[in-house]
Amino acid sequence: MTSDEKFMKAALAEAKKAAAEDEVPVGAVIVKDQKIIARAHNKKEKNGCAVDHAEVLAIKKATKKTGNWWLEGCTLYVTLEPCAMCAGAIVNSRLDRVVYGAKDPRFGFLGSLATLDEDYPLNHKFQKQSGVLGEECSSVLTAFFAAKRAKSKKN
Amino acid sequence: MTSDEKFMKAALAEAKKAAAEDEVPVGAVIVKDQKIIARAHNKKEKNGCAVDHAEVLAIKKATKKTGNWWLEGCTLYVTLEPCAMCAGAIVNSRLDRVVYGAKDPRFGFLGSLATLDEDYPLNHKFQKQSGVLGEECSSVLTAFFAAKRAKSKKN
Repeated sequence: MTSDEKFMKAALAEAKKAAAEDEVPVGAVIVKDQKIIARAHNKKEKNGCAVDHAEVLAIKKATKKTGNWWLEGCTLYVTLEPCAMCAGAIVNSRLDRVVYGAKDPRFGFLGSLATLDEDYPLNHKFQKQSGVLGEECSSVLTAFFAAKRAKSKKN
Repeated sequence: MTSDEKFMKAALAEAKKAAAEDEVPVGAVIVKDQKIIARAHNKKEKNGCAVDHAEVLAIKKATKKTGNWWLEGCTLYVTLEPCAMCAGAIVNSRLDRVVYGAKDPRFGFLGSLATLDEDYPLNHKFQKQSGVLGEECSSVLTAFFAAKRAKSKKN
């Protein structure tokens, strides 16, 4: 298992916590010096706020831990391609690198609809990699929505 | 004074609070049924987190107040054109309308670099208006940065 896969496994564990809480299962971790400094999962429904995606919550935890909004030397691992809001939060927080699992053709802003830091002349660019444990990340989402559909058919 | 100008004045008062706290002076309010339900200003430095722009903090307060992530019937007033992160947060939170004061040619995602909800096939579109008390909103920012430059020349 590569180091990227190991950290994506930790993000997947967060995604599974989200599923257990009936949230769209997306999980994220932030890594610095090969150590996880923040773990978070989507809490949109629980917190009643559409800002509370896994990536934003992980960034907030990481800045609290480091005491600095500038997340230099940090890598974000997230199970699903970030949306425009989260891609913007990554640019604003100056993360060095983003690794994601499944692509999001509907809302993804790091390769699907756009690649935020490459398509626009913003003040920060970062490395990115997709498809790490992509099938596993994708299947957690597929299973969640299939169970939702099955439940709504029963009712 | 129009109703839009009245609410932008309240956003400007928030921007001035940010300036007093040595934060880039951007302020925002969220209005529902002609009443302000949330007021916030940029707290990036104080909170040590680049996610804590005025718009995001206002959205979080508004959802806490309404108990719903879906900010239907709400208008966001903000002194500066929202960045990609904030434009994404507006889409995710389904605000009906956004009114902003000054344009942001470097980072603005509601008319300058892009118009997020119009340029991409996202699942929410909203009304938008720019230039409401634009000069006043702009001059708060200009004065802040001029004072910063003068101070750094002295030191």
